[in-house]
Amino acid sequence: MWMAELAARSGLPVPTIKYYLREGLLPPGVAVGATRARYDESHVRRLRLIRALVDVAQLRLDVVRSVLDGIDRARNRHEAVGTAHMRLSQTVTDDDPPSAESMQAVADLLDRNGWSLLPNSPHRIALAQALDAIARLGLPAEPDILDAYAHAMRDAASVELGLVAGTEDRELAVEHAVIGTLLLEPVLLTIRRIAQVNVSREQFPD
Amino acid sequence: MWMAELAARSGLPVPTIKYYLREGLLPPGVAVGATRARYDESHVRRLRLIRALVDVAQLRLDVVRSVLDGIDRARNRHEAVGTAHMRLSQTVTDDDPPSAESMQAVADLLDRNGWSLLPNSPHRIALAQALDAIARLGLPAEPDILDAYAHAMRDAASVELGLVAGTEDRELAVEHAVIGTLLLEPVLLTIRRIAQVNVSREQFPD
Repeated sequence: MWMAELAARSGLPVPTIKYYLREGLLPPGVAVGATRARYDESHVRRLRLIRALVDVAQLRLDVVRSVLDGIDRARNRHEAVGTAHMRLSQTVTDDDPPSAESMQAVADLLDRNGWSLLPNSPHRIALAQALDAIARLGLPAEPDILDAYAHAMRDAASVELGLVAGTEDRELAVEHAVIGTLLLEPVLLTIRRIAQVNVSREQFPD
Repeated sequence: MWMAELAARSGLPVPTIKYYLREGLLPPGVAVGATRARYDESHVRRLRLIRALVDVAQLRLDVVRSVLDGIDRARNRHEAVGTAHMRLSQTVTDDDPPSAESMQAVADLLDRNGWSLLPNSPHRIALAQALDAIARLGLPAEPDILDAYAHAMRDAASVELGLVAGTEDRELAVEHAVIGTLLLEPVLLTIRRIAQVNVSREQFPD
């Protein structure tokens, strides 16, 4: 397809697509003559993924580039999804180093649940930092709460992965993972509040 | 206690406390002479709550004032917690009105789970808006996912409410609810990603 069709299919204006091409976020099309190029479905999918990362995840373009690089270098679908997740989380772990207590609490949580993480996984530090933030306000997160979340999220993840399981296409799997991870967050958090209101009404009928 | 002790106890600088007094966020102390006043434990707790709302929830001061007004007007602890929750969510619902389809999906979810919400609850609109955002990217959230979240969050809420159940003090209950709602969000979301990594490894061992 030509640029005009790519714009129509992706819903993005031509100048935006040209900008992504110049910035190397979108691979070039196949040149036809000096000034024209043909694009295919992979360009439509890549633009949809960029849009999800920019509009939904609200990532800066350099972070988007880093996510896309990781995806392109991954050896398989699982690694591509894992890489996208890690880069999405990397943005939150550049703050204070977490306390030894919280790092131990994370290690204990993983042990209790039979889980493991790569040594360089940002999730380990991100979780320890979140635990530190709560402890500073004098209300530490007890293992009971963490285990309740782990149990709840294990069940939810099995259903969520059904979304990705259907596709063998790497770009599509990553797009689903990004959308699933980021866009479903507000859904999950809002349902959490609705659950809190209703469970609270049952438990404290004052 | 005098202002100096209030500053030491709350960990906030005196000028900040004086600013909150001028803005009406912190009730005045009992005047002792023309320029001095005595404060008590309720001031320490209120300052801790303001700090949680400003630093953790990152709310603007006018929203903090609205949350505190709602708490002060509430008739009981349950209503105070509910009011705080509603004001915390109000900030996300000022965008586009949600689609009729998504509002129906929310109503169906509530029905299937035996839940109810006040007609003016912001959670209803916030959830419908989140569902619209996903549908726009061509990946609608199926009822299966929503029910998995509802089930997971119902279990988590029972444990979370254990945090609040111990206290009869309204200010403390609200502080715990705010901290629990907001500060535990990153904990829950990070544990979700850890669960996804581990469940994905089990389900796709490629």
